[in-house]
Amino acid sequence: MVLSLVAGSGNPILAGNLSAALRAPLVPRVLEHFADGELHVELEQTVRGHDVYVLESICPPVDTHLLELFFIADACRRAGAGRLTAVLPYFAYARQDRRAHGREPIGAHLVARMIEATGFHRVIAIDLHSPEIEGFFHLPLEHLTAAPLLAQAVSASSDTIIVAPDLGAVKLAERYQAILQCPIAVVHKTRLSGESVSVRSIVGDVKGRAPLIVDDMISTAGTIEAAVKALFEAGCRSDVRIAATHALLVGPAFTRLAALPIREFLTTNTVAPLEPLPNPHRVVDVAPLLADVIGRLAHERSLESLVVHR
Amino acid sequence: MVLSLVAGSGNPILAGNLSAALRAPLVPRVLEHFADGELHVELEQTVRGHDVYVLESICPPVDTHLLELFFIADACRRAGAGRLTAVLPYFAYARQDRRAHGREPIGAHLVARMIEATGFHRVIAIDLHSPEIEGFFHLPLEHLTAAPLLAQAVSASSDTIIVAPDLGAVKLAERYQAILQCPIAVVHKTRLSGESVSVRSIVGDVKGRAPLIVDDMISTAGTIEAAVKALFEAGCRSDVRIAATHALLVGPAFTRLAALPIREFLTTNTVAPLEPLPNPHRVVDVAPLLADVIGRLAHERSLESLVVHR
Amino acid sequence: MVLSLVAGSGNPILAGNLSAALRAPLVPRVLEHFADGELHVELEQTVRGHDVYVLESICPPVDTHLLELFFIADACRRAGAGRLTAVLPYFAYARQDRRAHGREPIGAHLVARMIEATGFHRVIAIDLHSPEIEGFFHLPLEHLTAAPLLAQAVSASSDTIIVAPDLGAVKLAERYQAILQCPIAVVHKTRLSGESVSVRSIVGDVKGRAPLIVDDMISTAGTIEAAVKALFEAGCRSDVRIAATHALLVGPAFTRLAALPIREFLTTNTVAPLEPLPNPHRVVDVAPLLADVIGRLAHERSLESLVVHR
Amino acid sequence: MVLSLVAGSGNPILAGNLSAALRAPLVPRVLEHFADGELHVELEQTVRGHDVYVLESICPPVDTHLLELFFIADACRRAGAGRLTAVLPYFAYARQDRRAHGREPIGAHLVARMIEATGFHRVIAIDLHSPEIEGFFHLPLEHLTAAPLLAQAVSASSDTIIVAPDLGAVKLAERYQAILQCPIAVVHKTRLSGESVSVRSIVGDVKGRAPLIVDDMISTAGTIEAAVKALFEAGCRSDVRIAATHALLVGPAFTRLAALPIREFLTTNTVAPLEPLPNPHRVVDVAPLLADVIGRLAHERSLESLVVHR
Amino acid sequence: MVLSLVAGSGNPILAGNLSAALRAPLVPRVLEHFADGELHVELEQTVRGHDVYVLESICPPVDTHLLELFFIADACRRAGAGRLTAVLPYFAYARQDRRAHGREPIGAHLVARMIEATGFHRVIAIDLHSPEIEGFFHLPLEHLTAAPLLAQAVSASSDTIIVAPDLGAVKLAERYQAILQCPIAVVHKTRLSGESVSVRSIVGDVKGRAPLIVDDMISTAGTIEAAVKALFEAGCRSDVRIAATHALLVGPAFTRLAALPIREFLTTNTVAPLEPLPNPHRVVDVAPLLADVIGRLAHERSLESLVVHR
Amino acid sequence: MVLSLVAGSGNPILAGNLSAALRAPLVPRVLEHFADGELHVELEQTVRGHDVYVLESICPPVDTHLLELFFIADACRRAGAGRLTAVLPYFAYARQDRRAHGREPIGAHLVARMIEATGFHRVIAIDLHSPEIEGFFHLPLEHLTAAPLLAQAVSASSDTIIVAPDLGAVKLAERYQAILQCPIAVVHKTRLSGESVSVRSIVGDVKGRAPLIVDDMISTAGTIEAAVKALFEAGCRSDVRIAATHALLVGPAFTRLAALPIREFLTTNTVAPLEPLPNPHRVVDVAPLLADVIGRLAHERSLESLVVHR
Repeated sequence: MVLSLVAGSGNPILAGNLSAALRAPLVPRVLEHFADGELHVELEQTVRGHDVYVLESICPPVDTHLLELFFIADACRRAGAGRLTAVLPYFAYARQDRRAHGREPIGAHLVARMIEATGFHRVIAIDLHSPEIEGFFHLPLEHLTAAPLLAQAVSASSDTIIVAPDLGAVKLAERYQAILQCPIAVVHKTRLSGESVSVRSIVGDVKGRAPLIVDDMISTAGTIEAAVKALFEAGCRSDVRIAATHALLVGPAFTRLAALPIREFLTTNTVAPLEPLPNPHRVVDVAPLLADVIGRLAHERSLESLVVHR
Repeated sequence: MVLSLVAGSGNPILAGNLSAALRAPLVPRVLEHFADGELHVELEQTVRGHDVYVLESICPPVDTHLLELFFIADACRRAGAGRLTAVLPYFAYARQDRRAHGREPIGAHLVARMIEATGFHRVIAIDLHSPEIEGFFHLPLEHLTAAPLLAQAVSASSDTIIVAPDLGAVKLAERYQAILQCPIAVVHKTRLSGESVSVRSIVGDVKGRAPLIVDDMISTAGTIEAAVKALFEAGCRSDVRIAATHALLVGPAFTRLAALPIREFLTTNTVAPLEPLPNPHRVVDVAPLLADVIGRLAHERSLESLVVHR
Repeated sequence: MVLSLVAGSGNPILAGNLSAALRAPLVPRVLEHFADGELHVELEQTVRGHDVYVLESICPPVDTHLLELFFIADACRRAGAGRLTAVLPYFAYARQDRRAHGREPIGAHLVARMIEATGFHRVIAIDLHSPEIEGFFHLPLEHLTAAPLLAQAVSASSDTIIVAPDLGAVKLAERYQAILQCPIAVVHKTRLSGESVSVRSIVGDVKGRAPLIVDDMISTAGTIEAAVKALFEAGCRSDVRIAATHALLVGPAFTRLAALPIREFLTTNTVAPLEPLPNPHRVVDVAPLLADVIGRLAHERSLESLVVHR
Repeated sequence: MVLSLVAGSGNPILAGNLSAALRAPLVPRVLEHFADGELHVELEQTVRGHDVYVLESICPPVDTHLLELFFIADACRRAGAGRLTAVLPYFAYARQDRRAHGREPIGAHLVARMIEATGFHRVIAIDLHSPEIEGFFHLPLEHLTAAPLLAQAVSASSDTIIVAPDLGAVKLAERYQAILQCPIAVVHKTRLSGESVSVRSIVGDVKGRAPLIVDDMISTAGTIEAAVKALFEAGCRSDVRIAATHALLVGPAFTRLAALPIREFLTTNTVAPLEPLPNPHRVVDVAPLLADVIGRLAHERSLESLVVHR
Repeated sequence: MVLSLVAGSGNPILAGNLSAALRAPLVPRVLEHFADGELHVELEQTVRGHDVYVLESICPPVDTHLLELFFIADACRRAGAGRLTAVLPYFAYARQDRRAHGREPIGAHLVARMIEATGFHRVIAIDLHSPEIEGFFHLPLEHLTAAPLLAQAVSASSDTIIVAPDLGAVKLAERYQAILQCPIAVVHKTRLSGESVSVRSIVGDVKGRAPLIVDDMISTAGTIEAAVKALFEAGCRSDVRIAATHALLVGPAFTRLAALPIREFLTTNTVAPLEPLPNPHRVVDVAPLLADVIGRLAHERSLESLVVHR
Repeated sequence: MVLSLVAGSGNPILAGNLSAALRAPLVPRVLEHFADGELHVELEQTVRGHDVYVLESICPPVDTHLLELFFIADACRRAGAGRLTAVLPYFAYARQDRRAHGREPIGAHLVARMIEATGFHRVIAIDLHSPEIEGFFHLPLEHLTAAPLLAQAVSASSDTIIVAPDLGAVKLAERYQAILQCPIAVVHKTRLSGESVSVRSIVGDVKGRAPLIVDDMISTAGTIEAAVKALFEAGCRSDVRIAATHALLVGPAFTRLAALPIREFLTTNTVAPLEPLPNPHRVVDVAPLLADVIGRLAHERSLESLVVHR
């Protein structure tokens, strides 16, 4: 099957990089909204019988990008695409993975169900906030991680300590540890409200060490802010580094980050940035990782050697 | 079963009216967006075992209102709702009812499919742009019309002529005729582009007559503008009246309507208005119609005598 | 995949033509009814792994031909067909595309649902009475038109006028106009009963002109009869030509057509004729059109240049 | 729920009897074919929220009656029926219960699948030719037998012998035996072709005995004819009686039966007779049995005491 | 597609034979139970894009082998298998093919449903106890028979008589007859309880003849024991041979068989033996038959010439 | 609807307690295995139209109990149950909630899918190892917790410290804290192999305190053993208490627990014990909790006030 790459509007730069990495031009497409806000999609090149990869980062505005994903899928399917794979570098609603109260929806379940209903055959995702979301799908979902890419971009010294800013990040921290061979500390928090965080204690000896805070995503940066504060109180060195796959950075995130003494912010381009980061930063391109996986899937080759990215 | 009414954010005024007409308070609910744009829904009252009607007008921003509809449905379903009915006074994407080119989605099909996938048992709609959309659903869809309500609000005189501004509106015009007993004229147009309209000719003798232009919806008002122009050229009287179920009024609609010598604009409240209409107008409340239908469905009574509204 | 063509009993002549056009012999098959009326189907040649096209015109007796279609599909599927495409030159029940009253079925929806339930992957249809039926299917449906074929068969002179015999035929008339470059007139009718037609008025100047009445199908010929009568009353010339894709011709059709002064009847062979047409006629073969589309689908080539036929 | 009984055209007399037995008038309905053979169904009375039983004997013309069943179901479902039960006294295509060759459909599977796709919740059948068809359905199917009714109608004497005319009828013969307490004989045949039968031998001592041949259905009467011949050759008495649930009687059946010295033909009214039986006969009404079962289902009562009819 | 063969734990010897016959090594896999009894499956080699055949004989412990089948299917599907075929030499629960009482499950329907739900595309089975189970599947099921293999292994002499030990085995006996050209006798029994059998009579003249008792499976050997006893009472010779596809041999089977004067027991290796057979026996390998069918399916060749095995 | 309670064989004592708490006798049922290991299920009392709750603890042997659950569901469904709820005090395979390697199944997804395929309408579970499993279901799943019941059974003193034996138990520990108002400590481990555990460090000051170790389940007791060892090394007091919802206790669990100085083991009866616990223990009955929830569901009352148990 011919490989075709169709991109939604969620992350045009990543789309370009992925196209280059795959040596596959993006399928030209119309993707516009009418005056009444209705989406209009049209592919301008045949995908009949092709192995089609639809790239869409479900970053804000999330509802718009979700609808785009579904409309592109329907266009491809009706146009005779041979196989349809959703490539979702950032997967929205991943935190709605269960009901906290009895009368809530499970957002991630709904997204999974709609992806299945619109005709996809396979999904590729990166560093899902809740890895169990794989089980929300009857479709195969390939869950990749960018942690090794970010870890390799770090130059760790002997006094570096990897910090999980909450318990949910410990497994990720261990992925960094496997590469960087540094000790780990954990900031154990209790959430007081939706966006603020109350740091209680730190597991591990951070005194005099240079912290590398790692997380899957940075949304409002509240968790990071609280972690940094706690680390300083615990005698940590002030040259903080942060590594996070998804730099969503919404609401007060830019303000908060600007106020922190961050030596370096390491992230990837899964999310298209809204504005330039206020801190010294490096952005690792996930296009080579995605291109590698897509290439293997397209040629029916094993993903086995990718195991470090899964 | 206890009747419960849950409203999305699409049309709060209609929600209030419907609640009053049904003597059923709206189920209190949280409906908010987090900083990252993700929707959060929570019902604050039990719907376990209830006959739940979810009111959501899919007016702009359409993608947001669609997602709200699906999230509310999932919340109700998981909370044990006994039966779920989508009440959709305005149904977006109804014009995407087939592929014009080979590589497009069929938007209305996608919406239907997602409504079915999220667990609704029945749908209520008003004056669908394309009535065949009923067949897109395996679920029963009750297709109501507001034309009799609008026709009854008109005081037709002996020189009134009902005008269908394009061929698609002829069936609707005949519904008005059945009540008003006036002659019909048809403006036969050829679309030149998506939003502008080229009027070619008028079927019927409009000279010296007072036109009542009828349509299912007014979006950018381009069709109306062209029809009025054609009617004037054909010697029509200048006191134009307009009757349309859905006053979507997007893009240049307000400007166009403001420039037309419209004596009266009759519409309904299926769509929440973005700003006050520039013309003399009357808005007919569809809440009593919806309340009548919902009451019959809830009590398992026939909709038969409603036949004039179907 | 090997291309295989299986034909139902709906239109043996078209089956032969299509087989010749595709240079693909028809798969020999048993298709018989037992004494109790039960259908027995058996394929006499392997279709394992093949790309199978099942040709069945759903012309009268429609229920028999529908069941044939489903039984052939099940035989192919269980015999290991790689891909199954329903080729339906005439699609019955297309006029049952919505409920007129509250307690009716939607026939076209049922047909679509059963086509999907029996395992087809794609549908090809020609000049559907209601193009929205495409949206009744989750499967891709390729909607072709024979209008260009028929228009090309017409030798239009400077006084030809294309006539849409009712509003539903206007879009089709415009397809003819695009090729023949003649003016259009519209006969605007009100149905009085199921089979008789009450002509009300004609839009367009037909006086002294030679009418070419165009429609998607001719069933009982009531609409044509009324249109001809109205055209004559409006001073049209008497050498009427008719172009219609589907010559269903049931009930009083032959009697009515025999009584009309029709100079030429242009139609296609989507429907197998019950008896010879009483009027001078030409029948355009749709086999080359179908063969072209099937050939492209089978070789995964774009249908794009067919756009004039869609 | 209100009980409603809708009847197809398959067996109007049984419909009347069932209606009387249930004290439930038949829902008035339109059931007609247009000139082009398309079926038109309309219910003339509300079934909203009702517990609807659709009675349709799938006797010849089988395709027509199948389509009726599906169209009535869709009409009921869209009209808001609360629960839909298919009551199928005779179930066509029951002999197509597996593939004899590799490239055949499984007719009974297709019928089951379409009954499920059209929205039924439960099925009632009588003396299925192949009882395993129950497992073709995911829906619950209540499989009743009329054998006790027929057995009770027989006045067996001390020299009666129950004869299974082929191996498939042995289990049925044992049902008769349980009531009549007579010995059983089995005619063991080899089919030579579809409709003729070659009797080989008889198991059991039939000499001088009065045979009661029992079967689930009599189609062309070939099996019966051969069995009678074999019984006579084996010295059986000539006053043959026959008991069969479904008197389908197609093709040469009437001629064959007329030529046989049948003392009495016992059957039921599951199939509407095409012409009067040539032999002395008694027809047992299954309406009381169906009414009993429907009454229990409608009132959610156990079918347990019906065990002799299952 | 590359052919891959994955074996469950149900029949390791047959798995080895099939692998050899196909010249396809078994995909190495982990198949273990944790301390809490939960099954753990992992494939140790890629199956991405492969045509995967999962061999699992559903012999005791049946629930364990069923779960293995489903877990292996899920592992293959998520790992990107291109096509999944269940190869089930012995199919458990085949006798639960209908409800005997009103409140039982239909075990074979449940197994079919779960096989479909876990993502298989096709099923291969051998000598199903109830051939109608093919219709329980919407998937294509290839139903093979080992009877010709067993018949060919028999050296029939002029005094051999084929014996069906109950009515259910008559069709199978006729398959043997077609090859061996011997007469047939039938033992007609009435079951008294689940495991014991009451022989009533024998159809056919067995006196002085050497019986070859044929059946699809031998479970507790009760039927065989009773048949042998009846044959001896009828004057049959004492050198009994038995041919049965599935030697399940549970409960008292070994004891019963050891006590019978069986000259030869012919069976296949569809079921892995629990202990050595007490009687002289020959075991025919079904691996060549399965390898032939799998080879044809894998290469999309017709199964036609296999007709004697279907 | 009448409430009916059907119990599998997974936990007879809990079944009895639940029956008593609901004042609803258990539906008598046959639940046996034939000699070949096939399960046979039969309900001995009507459930037609009932609101049926099927209680089955999926404790070892897990495959047997899973099959029982599906067979009982099919029996209930075919017997006309009005609504089917699976009550699963212990839910097996909950730890297989994602793929660790690329070629594994997701066991919990398979279980969820089969529960849905067999016809349940709702699921009740207690302290799922992975709460995200709720999202594996499209059905509503009510996730209860027994933590408050266990916490209330503890008499905490001023020196009690709640200990989470690994990071996965921290959220549960916070549930205990909310009731007991004690500090929390966390044992942070790295798994070395499947069953042994390497304790690395303890977060929180445990010196001289009396630990209450809390977990959702105790399987082989390896985690507990390691936690106790770590606590002692950290200077904890030796009177350890343990609270865990599911006392699965397989493999070396009894030996390990017997060797530990456990003052009190608090658990529930979600799992039927294999042998008496070696330590001083109290078992809290979850029947009242389940009865409360079932009673609310059956009477369509809100579960809201149960929020502490969700």
